[in-house]
Amino acid sequence: MTDLPPALDELRPWQLVSSTRGANLLVARHRIDRLRHPRSGVEFDRTVLEVPGWVNIVARTRPSDDHPAGQLVVVRQFRFGTGRMSVEIPGGVIDPGEEHRTAALRELREETGHTSDRWTYLGSVEPNPAFLTNVCHHWLAEDCEATHALDLDPGEDIAVELIDWPDVAARVHDGTLAHTLVVSALARVVDLRGGY
Amino acid sequence: MTDLPPALDELRPWQLVSSTRGANLLVARHRIDRLRHPRSGVEFDRTVLEVPGWVNIVARTRPSDDHPAGQLVVVRQFRFGTGRMSVEIPGGVIDPGEEHRTAALRELREETGHTSDRWTYLGSVEPNPAFLTNVCHHWLAEDCEATHALDLDPGEDIAVELIDWPDVAARVHDGTLAHTLVVSALARVVDLRGGY
Repeated sequence: MTDLPPALDELRPWQLVSSTRGANLLVARHRIDRLRHPRSGVEFDRTVLEVPGWVNIVARTRPSDDHPAGQLVVVRQFRFGTGRMSVEIPGGVIDPGEEHRTAALRELREETGHTSDRWTYLGSVEPNPAFLTNVCHHWLAEDCEATHALDLDPGEDIAVELIDWPDVAARVHDGTLAHTLVVSALARVVDLRGGY
Repeated sequence: MTDLPPALDELRPWQLVSSTRGANLLVARHRIDRLRHPRSGVEFDRTVLEVPGWVNIVARTRPSDDHPAGQLVVVRQFRFGTGRMSVEIPGGVIDPGEEHRTAALRELREETGHTSDRWTYLGSVEPNPAFLTNVCHHWLAEDCEATHALDLDPGEDIAVELIDWPDVAARVHDGTLAHTLVVSALARVVDLRGGY
Protein backbone atom coordinates (compact mmCIF):
# COMPACT_ATOMS: atom_id res chain seq x y z
CA MET A 1 0.00 0.00 0.00
CA THR A 2 1.47 3.31 -1.12
CA ASP A 3 1.67 6.30 1.19
CA LEU A 4 -0.31 9.32 0.10
CA PRO A 5 2.15 11.83 -1.43
CA PRO A 6 2.75 14.71 -1.22
CA ALA A 7 2.54 15.52 2.48
CA LEU A 8 -0.06 18.16 3.32
CA ASP A 9 2.36 20.71 4.72
CA GLU A 10 4.13 20.81 1.37
CA LEU A 11 1.08 22.06 -0.54
CA ARG A 12 1.44 25.78 -1.21
CA PRO A 13 -0.52 28.34 -3.22
CA TRP A 14 0.69 29.16 -6.69
CA GLN A 15 2.33 32.56 -7.17
CA LEU A 16 0.63 34.92 -9.62
CA VAL A 17 3.22 36.05 -12.18
CA SER A 18 1.04 38.20 -14.44
CA SER A 19 -2.57 38.70 -15.46
CA THR A 20 -3.80 39.60 -18.96
CA ARG A 21 -7.24 40.91 -19.95
CA GLY A 22 -9.13 38.90 -22.55
CA ALA A 23 -12.41 39.37 -24.33
CA ASN A 24 -15.72 40.33 -22.79
CA LEU A 25 -17.68 37.05 -23.08
CA LEU A 26 -21.05 38.73 -22.25
CA VAL A 27 -21.63 36.37 -19.32
CA ALA A 28 -18.04 36.65 -18.13
CA ARG A 29 -14.84 38.63 -18.46
CA HIS A 30 -11.94 36.54 -19.72
CA ARG A 31 -8.55 36.80 -18.01
CA ILE A 32 -5.35 34.82 -18.49
CA ASP A 33 -3.29 34.45 -15.34
CA ARG A 34 0.31 33.34 -15.51
CA LEU A 35 1.14 31.37 -12.37
CA ARG A 36 4.28 29.80 -11.01
CA HIS A 37 4.07 26.17 -9.89
CA PRO A 38 4.98 26.22 -6.18
CA ARG A 39 7.06 23.04 -6.44
CA SER A 40 8.72 23.13 -9.86
CA GLY A 41 8.86 26.88 -10.41
CA VAL A 42 7.57 26.39 -13.96
CA GLU A 43 5.11 29.04 -15.15
CA PHE A 44 1.71 28.15 -16.66
CA ASP A 45 -1.03 30.21 -18.30
CA ARG A 46 -4.44 29.57 -16.84
CA THR A 47 -7.86 30.81 -17.95
CA VAL A 48 -10.00 32.64 -15.43
CA LEU A 49 -13.55 33.76 -16.19
CA GLU A 50 -14.60 36.64 -13.95
CA VAL A 51 -18.30 36.18 -13.29
CA PRO A 52 -20.69 37.87 -10.87
CA GLY A 53 -22.35 35.90 -8.09
CA TRP A 54 -25.36 33.78 -8.90
CA VAL A 55 -28.44 32.72 -6.92
CA ASN A 56 -30.98 29.97 -7.41
CA ILE A 57 -34.12 29.13 -5.53
CA VAL A 58 -35.81 25.89 -4.45
CA ALA A 59 -39.38 27.21 -4.56
CA ARG A 60 -42.05 24.97 -3.03
CA THR A 61 -45.71 25.89 -3.37
CA ARG A 62 -48.12 26.09 -0.44
CA PRO A 63 -49.65 22.64 0.27
CA SER A 64 -53.15 22.19 -1.14
CA ASP A 65 -55.76 19.43 -1.22
CA ASP A 66 -54.54 18.41 -4.68
CA HIS A 67 -50.86 18.65 -3.75
CA PRO A 68 -50.53 18.02 0.00
CA ALA A 69 -46.71 18.13 -0.16
CA GLY A 70 -46.65 21.16 -2.42
CA GLN A 71 -44.95 21.42 -5.79
CA LEU A 72 -41.53 22.52 -7.00
CA VAL A 73 -41.65 25.60 -9.23
CA VAL A 74 -39.40 25.16 -12.27
CA VAL A 75 -38.71 27.08 -15.47
CA ARG A 76 -38.30 25.58 -18.89
CA GLN A 77 -36.16 27.51 -21.36
CA PHE A 78 -33.89 27.04 -24.37
CA ARG A 79 -30.27 26.98 -23.20
CA PHE A 80 -27.62 28.22 -25.58
CA GLY A 81 -24.70 26.16 -24.21
CA THR A 82 -26.30 22.77 -24.73
CA GLY A 83 -28.62 23.98 -27.52
CA ARG A 84 -31.57 22.24 -25.86
CA MET A 85 -34.57 22.97 -23.70
CA SER A 86 -33.65 22.77 -20.02
CA VAL A 87 -35.81 22.45 -16.92
CA GLU A 88 -34.30 24.26 -13.94
CA ILE A 89 -35.19 25.91 -10.70
CA PRO A 90 -35.34 29.71 -11.08
CA GLY A 91 -32.14 31.66 -10.63
CA GLY A 92 -29.87 34.23 -12.12
CA VAL A 93 -27.16 36.81 -11.73
CA ILE A 94 -26.84 39.03 -8.65
CA ASP A 95 -26.97 42.66 -9.80
CA PRO A 96 -24.08 44.98 -8.83
CA GLY A 97 -24.54 46.03 -5.19
CA GLU A 98 -27.51 43.73 -4.71
CA GLU A 99 -27.77 41.42 -1.69
CA HIS A 100 -28.05 37.79 -2.76
CA ARG A 101 -31.26 37.38 -0.76
CA THR A 102 -32.78 40.30 -2.67
CA ALA A 103 -31.64 38.73 -5.94
CA ALA A 104 -33.32 35.45 -4.96
CA LEU A 105 -36.66 37.17 -4.22
CA ARG A 106 -36.39 39.14 -7.47
CA GLU A 107 -35.50 36.18 -9.69
CA LEU A 108 -38.30 34.03 -8.27
CA ARG A 109 -40.85 36.77 -8.95
CA GLU A 110 -39.53 37.79 -12.38
CA GLU A 111 -39.01 34.28 -13.78
CA THR A 112 -42.01 32.50 -12.23
CA GLY A 113 -44.46 35.13 -10.93
CA HIS A 114 -44.27 33.41 -7.54
CA THR A 115 -43.60 35.04 -4.18
CA SER A 116 -43.10 33.71 -0.67
CA ASP A 117 -42.91 34.92 2.93
CA ARG A 118 -40.83 31.93 4.09
CA TRP A 119 -37.20 32.16 2.99
CA THR A 120 -34.36 29.99 4.26
CA TYR A 121 -30.73 30.29 3.20
CA LEU A 122 -29.30 26.93 2.09
CA GLY A 123 -25.65 27.97 1.78
CA SER A 124 -23.40 28.53 -1.19
CA VAL A 125 -21.36 26.45 -3.62
CA GLU A 126 -18.57 27.21 -6.09
CA PRO A 127 -19.91 26.64 -9.63
CA ASN A 128 -16.43 25.75 -10.89
CA PRO A 129 -13.41 26.90 -8.83
CA ALA A 130 -11.05 25.70 -11.60
CA PHE A 131 -11.88 28.66 -13.85
CA LEU A 132 -14.89 30.59 -12.47
CA THR A 133 -14.39 33.22 -9.77
CA ASN A 134 -17.87 33.20 -8.31
CA VAL A 135 -20.18 31.46 -5.86
CA CYS A 136 -23.84 30.51 -6.24
CA HIS A 137 -26.14 31.06 -3.27
CA HIS A 138 -28.93 28.53 -2.76
CA TRP A 139 -32.23 29.68 -1.24
CA LEU A 140 -35.38 27.84 -0.19
CA ALA A 141 -38.75 29.59 -0.58
CA GLU A 142 -41.71 27.78 0.99
CA ASP A 143 -45.47 28.34 0.75
CA CYS A 144 -44.96 29.98 -2.64
CA GLU A 145 -47.94 31.38 -4.50
CA ALA A 146 -48.35 32.68 -8.04
CA THR A 147 -49.05 36.36 -7.36
CA HIS A 148 -47.49 38.26 -10.28
CA ALA A 149 -47.19 38.16 -14.03
CA LEU A 150 -43.80 37.10 -15.34
CA ASP A 151 -41.32 39.96 -15.83
CA LEU A 152 -38.86 38.65 -18.41
CA ASP A 153 -35.91 40.35 -20.06
CA PRO A 154 -36.26 40.79 -23.84
CA GLY A 155 -33.64 38.02 -24.19
CA GLU A 156 -35.61 35.47 -22.15
CA ASP A 157 -38.39 33.08 -23.13
CA ILE A 158 -39.51 31.00 -20.20
CA ALA A 159 -42.38 28.64 -19.38
CA VAL A 160 -43.22 27.94 -15.75
CA GLU A 161 -44.00 24.37 -14.70
CA LEU A 162 -44.75 22.61 -11.44
CA ILE A 163 -43.36 19.24 -10.30
CA ASP A 164 -45.12 17.39 -7.50
CA TRP A 165 -42.73 17.50 -4.55
CA PRO A 166 -42.55 13.71 -4.05
CA ASP A 167 -41.45 13.35 -7.70
CA VAL A 168 -38.47 15.73 -7.51
CA ALA A 169 -35.79 13.09 -6.88
CA ALA A 170 -37.13 10.99 -9.78
CA ARG A 171 -36.87 14.02 -12.09
CA VAL A 172 -33.20 14.35 -11.12
CA HIS A 173 -32.59 10.65 -11.68
CA ASP A 174 -34.28 10.60 -15.11
CA GLY A 175 -32.26 13.62 -16.25
CA THR A 176 -35.13 16.10 -16.48
CA LEU A 177 -33.38 18.24 -13.85
CA ALA A 178 -29.78 18.01 -15.09
CA HIS A 179 -28.20 21.38 -14.31
CA THR A 180 -25.62 20.69 -11.61
CA LEU A 181 -26.45 23.93 -9.75
CA VAL A 182 -30.06 22.79 -9.60
CA VAL A 183 -28.97 19.42 -8.24
CA SER A 184 -26.72 20.93 -5.58
CA ALA A 185 -29.51 23.26 -4.39
CA LEU A 186 -32.08 20.45 -4.28
CA ALA A 187 -29.65 18.17 -2.42
CA ARG A 188 -29.97 20.45 0.64
CA VAL A 189 -33.68 19.70 0.97
CA VAL A 190 -34.38 16.47 -0.98
CA ASP A 191 -32.75 13.06 -0.54
CA LEU A 192 -31.27 12.49 -4.02
CA ARG A 193 -29.58 9.15 -3.36
CA GLY A 194 -30.13 6.39 -5.88
CA GLY A 195 -31.43 6.54 -9.41
CA TYR A 196 -28.52 4.63 -10.93
CA MET B 1 -54.02 33.81 -8.40
CA THR B 2 -52.32 34.27 -11.73
CA ASP B 3 -52.21 31.57 -14.35
CA LEU B 4 -48.75 30.35 -15.34
CA PRO B 5 -47.84 32.00 -18.65
CA PRO B 6 -46.78 31.18 -21.28
CA ALA B 7 -48.49 27.90 -22.10
CA LEU B 8 -46.12 24.99 -22.61
CA ASP B 9 -46.98 24.37 -26.23
CA GLU B 10 -45.89 27.89 -27.10
CA LEU B 11 -42.28 27.36 -26.02
CA ARG B 12 -40.07 26.87 -29.06
CA PRO B 13 -36.32 26.55 -29.63
CA TRP B 14 -34.40 29.63 -30.68
CA GLN B 15 -33.22 29.77 -34.27
CA LEU B 16 -29.44 29.99 -34.79
CA VAL B 17 -28.70 33.00 -37.01
CA SER B 18 -24.92 32.88 -37.10
CA SER B 19 -21.96 31.57 -35.13
CA THR B 20 -18.60 33.32 -34.68
CA ARG B 21 -15.34 31.81 -33.46
CA GLY B 22 -13.71 33.47 -30.47
CA ALA B 23 -10.48 32.93 -28.59
CA ASN B 24 -9.05 29.64 -27.42
CA LEU B 25 -9.52 29.89 -23.65
CA LEU B 26 -7.24 26.89 -22.92
CA VAL B 27 -10.00 25.07 -21.04
CA ALA B 28 -12.63 25.98 -23.62
CA ARG B 29 -13.18 27.32 -27.10
CA HIS B 30 -15.17 30.54 -27.16
CA ARG B 31 -18.01 30.96 -29.63
CA ILE B 32 -20.59 33.71 -30.07
CA ASP B 33 -23.93 32.47 -31.37
CA ARG B 34 -26.47 34.91 -32.74
CA LEU B 35 -29.94 33.54 -32.03
CA ARG B 36 -33.42 34.71 -32.90
CA HIS B 37 -35.95 34.92 -30.07
CA PRO B 38 -38.75 32.51 -31.09
CA ARG B 39 -41.47 34.87 -29.85
CA SER B 40 -40.26 38.39 -30.61
CA GLY B 41 -37.96 37.65 -33.56
CA VAL B 42 -35.29 39.89 -32.02
CA GLU B 43 -31.72 38.61 -32.43
CA PHE B 44 -29.34 38.25 -29.48
CA ASP B 45 -25.65 37.39 -29.19
CA ARG B 46 -24.95 34.62 -26.70
CA THR B 47 -21.65 33.25 -25.43
CA VAL B 48 -21.03 29.53 -25.79
CA LEU B 49 -17.93 27.84 -24.38
CA GLU B 50 -17.17 24.59 -26.19
CA VAL B 51 -15.73 22.23 -23.60
CA PRO B 52 -14.98 18.49 -23.68
CA GLY B 53 -16.85 16.10 -21.42
CA TRP B 54 -15.79 15.81 -17.80
CA VAL B 55 -15.84 12.96 -15.27
CA ASN B 56 -15.57 12.87 -11.52
CA ILE B 57 -15.41 9.99 -9.09
CA VAL B 58 -16.86 9.31 -5.66
CA ALA B 59 -14.05 7.04 -4.43
CA ARG B 60 -14.69 5.15 -1.19
CA THR B 61 -11.90 3.13 0.41
CA ARG B 62 -12.24 -0.50 1.46
CA PRO B 63 -13.67 -0.76 5.01
CA SER B 64 -11.05 -1.39 7.69
CA ASP B 65 -10.99 -1.82 11.45
CA ASP B 66 -10.06 1.85 11.85
CA HIS B 67 -12.62 3.02 9.28
CA PRO B 68 -15.47 0.52 9.18
CA ALA B 69 -17.50 2.66 6.74
CA GLY B 70 -14.49 3.45 4.55
CA GLN B 71 -13.24 6.89 3.66
CA LEU B 72 -13.84 9.32 0.80
CA VAL B 73 -10.72 9.96 -1.30
CA VAL B 74 -10.34 13.68 -2.02
CA VAL B 75 -7.71 15.90 -3.61
CA ARG B 76 -6.61 19.29 -2.33
CA GLN B 77 -5.25 21.72 -4.90
CA PHE B 78 -4.92 25.40 -5.64
CA ARG B 79 -7.73 26.47 -7.96
CA PHE B 80 -7.10 29.34 -10.34
CA GLY B 81 -10.72 30.54 -10.70
CA THR B 82 -11.31 31.20 -7.02
CA GLY B 83 -7.60 31.70 -6.22
CA ARG B 84 -7.89 29.41 -3.22
CA MET B 85 -7.16 25.86 -2.13
CA SER B 86 -10.07 23.58 -2.94
CA VAL B 87 -10.94 20.11 -1.66
CA GLU B 88 -12.68 18.03 -4.32
CA ILE B 89 -13.30 14.48 -5.39
CA PRO B 90 -10.93 13.44 -8.21
CA GLY B 91 -12.00 14.20 -11.76
CA GLY B 92 -10.96 15.75 -15.02
CA VAL B 93 -11.36 16.04 -18.74
CA ILE B 94 -12.26 13.10 -20.99
CA ASP B 95 -9.51 12.74 -23.61
CA PRO B 96 -10.52 12.77 -27.31
CA GLY B 97 -11.93 9.35 -28.21
CA GLU B 98 -11.78 8.13 -24.62
CA GLU B 99 -14.77 6.40 -22.98
CA HIS B 100 -15.91 8.27 -19.89
CA ARG B 101 -15.54 5.12 -17.78
CA THR B 102 -11.91 4.83 -18.90
CA ALA B 103 -11.38 8.49 -18.06
CA ALA B 104 -12.80 7.90 -14.58
CA LEU B 105 -10.44 4.98 -13.90
CA ARG B 106 -7.51 6.99 -15.25
CA GLU B 107 -8.23 10.16 -13.29
CA LEU B 108 -8.68 8.24 -10.03
CA ARG B 109 -5.33 6.51 -10.46
CA GLU B 110 -3.41 9.55 -11.74
CA GLU B 111 -4.71 12.06 -9.19
CA THR B 112 -4.93 9.84 -6.11
CA GLY B 113 -2.93 6.64 -6.76
CA HIS B 114 -6.08 4.66 -5.90
CA THR B 115 -7.66 1.88 -7.93
CA SER B 116 -10.86 -0.11 -7.57
CA ASP B 117 -12.55 -3.21 -9.00
CA ARG B 118 -16.06 -2.00 -8.10
CA TRP B 119 -17.29 0.72 -10.42
CA THR B 120 -20.89 2.00 -10.63
CA TYR B 121 -22.13 4.67 -13.03
CA LEU B 122 -24.05 7.40 -11.19
CA GLY B 123 -25.39 9.28 -14.20
CA SER B 124 -24.52 12.61 -15.75
CA VAL B 125 -25.27 16.27 -15.16
CA GLU B 126 -24.91 19.44 -17.21
CA PRO B 127 -22.25 21.65 -15.58
CA ASN B 128 -23.91 24.80 -16.92
CA PRO B 129 -26.28 24.45 -19.90
CA ALA B 130 -26.56 28.25 -20.16
CA PHE B 131 -23.09 28.59 -21.71
CA LEU B 132 -21.20 25.27 -21.48
CA THR B 133 -21.76 22.58 -24.10
CA ASN B 134 -20.69 19.58 -22.07
CA VAL B 135 -21.87 17.01 -19.54
CA CYS B 136 -20.06 15.63 -16.51
CA HIS B 137 -20.31 11.91 -15.80
CA HIS B 138 -20.40 10.85 -12.15
CA TRP B 139 -18.84 7.51 -11.16
CA LEU B 140 -18.72 5.60 -7.87
CA ALA B 141 -15.60 3.50 -7.09
CA GLU B 142 -15.87 1.28 -4.00
CA ASP B 143 -13.27 -0.75 -2.07
CA CYS B 144 -10.57 1.63 -3.32
CA GLU B 145 -6.96 1.01 -2.33
CA ALA B 146 -3.83 3.11 -2.73
CA THR B 147 -1.87 1.00 -5.21
CA HIS B 148 0.07 3.48 -7.36
CA ALA B 149 2.18 6.59 -7.06
CA LEU B 150 0.52 9.79 -8.22
CA ASP B 151 0.94 10.57 -11.93
CA LEU B 152 0.44 14.32 -12.18
CA ASP B 153 0.72 16.63 -15.17
CA PRO B 154 3.49 19.22 -14.90
CA GLY B 155 0.75 21.80 -14.37
CA GLU B 156 -0.78 20.02 -11.37
CA ASP B 157 0.12 20.06 -7.68
CA ILE B 158 -2.21 17.86 -5.67
CA ALA B 159 -2.36 16.45 -2.14
CA VAL B 160 -4.51 13.40 -1.46
CA GLU B 161 -6.64 13.35 1.70
CA LEU B 162 -9.19 10.99 3.19
CA ILE B 163 -12.49 11.95 4.83
CA ASP B 164 -14.24 9.46 7.06
CA TRP B 165 -17.35 8.40 5.17
CA PRO B 166 -19.82 9.36 7.97
CA ASP B 167 -18.36 12.91 7.94
CA VAL B 168 -18.89 13.58 4.22
CA ALA B 169 -22.24 15.40 4.55
CA ALA B 170 -20.78 17.61 7.29
CA ARG B 171 -17.88 18.55 5.02
CA VAL B 172 -20.39 19.68 2.38
CA HIS B 173 -22.37 21.65 4.94
CA ASP B 174 -19.30 23.40 6.39
CA GLY B 175 -18.13 24.41 2.91
CA THR B 176 -15.02 22.20 2.77
CA LEU B 177 -16.50 20.41 -0.25
CA ALA B 178 -17.90 23.41 -2.17
CA HIS B 179 -17.48 22.53 -5.86
CA THR B 180 -20.99 22.05 -7.21
CA LEU B 181 -19.93 19.10 -9.41
CA VAL B 182 -18.59 17.42 -6.28
CA VAL B 183 -21.87 18.06 -4.49
CA SER B 184 -23.99 16.72 -7.35
CA ALA B 185 -21.90 13.52 -7.54
CA LEU B 186 -22.01 12.97 -3.77
CA ALA B 187 -25.77 13.59 -3.70
CA ARG B 188 -26.27 10.30 -5.59
CA VAL B 189 -24.77 8.29 -2.72
CA VAL B 190 -24.90 10.49 0.42
CA ASP B 191 -27.93 12.14 2.01
CA LEU B 192 -26.91 15.82 1.89
CA ARG B 193 -30.07 17.31 3.36
CA GLY B 194 -29.70 19.87 6.11
CA GLY B 195 -26.67 21.85 7.19
CA TYR B 196 -28.39 25.25 7.01
